[in-house]
Amino acid sequence: MNIILVEEAEIAGDRLTLIDRRAEHIVKVLRAEPGDRLRVGVIGGRRGFGTIDGMKKKYPFAVELQVDLTDPPGVLPPIDLILALPRPIMLKRILSQVTTLGVGTIHLINANRVEKSFWEAGLLEPEEYRTHLLQGLEQAVDTRLPEVRLHPKFKPFIEDYWPTVAGDYRSLLLADPAGSSRLTEVVTDNSGRLVLAVGPEGGWVDYELEKFKEQGFCCCTLGERILKVDTAVIALHAAISTLREVAAYR
Amino acid sequence: MNIILVEEAEIAGDRLTLIDRRAEHIVKVLRAEPGDRLRVGVIGGRRGFGTIDGMKKKYPFAVELQVDLTDPPGVLPPIDLILALPRPIMLKRILSQVTTLGVGTIHLINANRVEKSFWEAGLLEPEEYRTHLLQGLEQAVDTRLPEVRLHPKFKPFIEDYWPTVAGDYRSLLLADPAGSSRLTEVVTDNSGRLVLAVGPEGGWVDYELEKFKEQGFCCCTLGERILKVDTAVIALHAAISTLREVAAYR
Repeated sequence: MNIILVEEAEIAGDRLTLIDRRAEHIVKVLRAEPGDRLRVGVIGGRRGFGTIDGMKKKYPFAVELQVDLTDPPGVLPPIDLILALPRPIMLKRILSQVTTLGVGTIHLINANRVEKSFWEAGLLEPEEYRTHLLQGLEQAVDTRLPEVRLHPKFKPFIEDYWPTVAGDYRSLLLADPAGSSRLTEVVTDNSGRLVLAVGPEGGWVDYELEKFKEQGFCCCTLGERILKVDTAVIALHAAISTLREVAAYR
Repeated sequence: MNIILVEEAEIAGDRLTLIDRRAEHIVKVLRAEPGDRLRVGVIGGRRGFGTIDGMKKKYPFAVELQVDLTDPPGVLPPIDLILALPRPIMLKRILSQVTTLGVGTIHLINANRVEKSFWEAGLLEPEEYRTHLLQGLEQAVDTRLPEVRLHPKFKPFIEDYWPTVAGDYRSLLLADPAGSSRLTEVVTDNSGRLVLAVGPEGGWVDYELEKFKEQGFCCCTLGERILKVDTAVIALHAAISTLREVAAYR
């Protein structure tokens, strides 16, 4: 935890009392002492610092802080993600890792090569996946939770839903190891929002590729090495962010 | 498995017989049939295809192939890695993921914030970590195994060992969230080899940073978000590869 995240309702004036896993973390992992200053943020809101002025270092743990939260939340990350629903154990890690890297909205969609059972995962309940998003924010020192949207049917997603949000984006990218364009040729601009679609293990089927192309998505590749989905999502996010930074200073 | 990897000694003329997990994978996951053509490669050597001309689809599994391996191995990736030894469960995933992305040598080194117990992990035995490197190659359709070197003492590594290999590199980068240079400002050249040093969870201590700087390493950052080591290694590798590609076409 590089920032202690709290709900707005937990703060009374400038007082914050923690008695759950966050208190335990402050005592056992951070080994903080009274007088220490920790980064604190309100989920979805302001960031700042809290100064410890009371602690109970044995179970049940408790930490009292005086907080001063005057920094605004981070800016909305310019990248959104469309992800063919991965295996739950991989999805957990991806949710946390992309939240750390910074993402606005994560659309989890169906695809031909998504196993049906993945849609029954308990992880798809908001209170379950939120834990992993919060871990990502705690790592990144951010307070802005990504939005997660589930689309269990591919055709209604791409034909009916997508056109209603497409106007929000300046760049529509689809990752495909056999894609015709190199990412470096495609991301040459730092303006506007960008959405990146990443397929399931085994890749998109031709029908899905065609549907994305009809919506104006550009098929692009990082290179000839075939990456697993969890590696690909991070590598693509990093490559896109880097290219946007290069474009900004050009 | 996007390529079936074998030892040179397993091939007799143009004949290859598999009876272990690779045979099981071909039967149960790839669901291949006689006549199907699969990518095959010799570990550390040539790549090509194998045509199935005999199978036993029930336990104990067996697959016979006629192989034609005439493609050379991939080129040596231009990036090497120095990694403060991570927790074994994270190291497994990193070894496999960076092998998929492409890396020449992986130096696993000690650092102040590396837990001593990590050095006792069974994973550090060559026959153990090799499994994870091979998984990375199978994913990437590559045959070239990265070299792994263990350096359980920091000072002899940086003062005695490093100067003996430093001449191999044109760029020496050290990742540090508080680094003074942006990666985009530093990687502006596609020539020569590059080594990237990534610290432990919690970061390098000042002494370690100073020692790396004495050896000419440049402290650089991807941005202000603090990444976990597994996310950082992939994101940095992808960002560096992208910047080298941009430099090549400039």
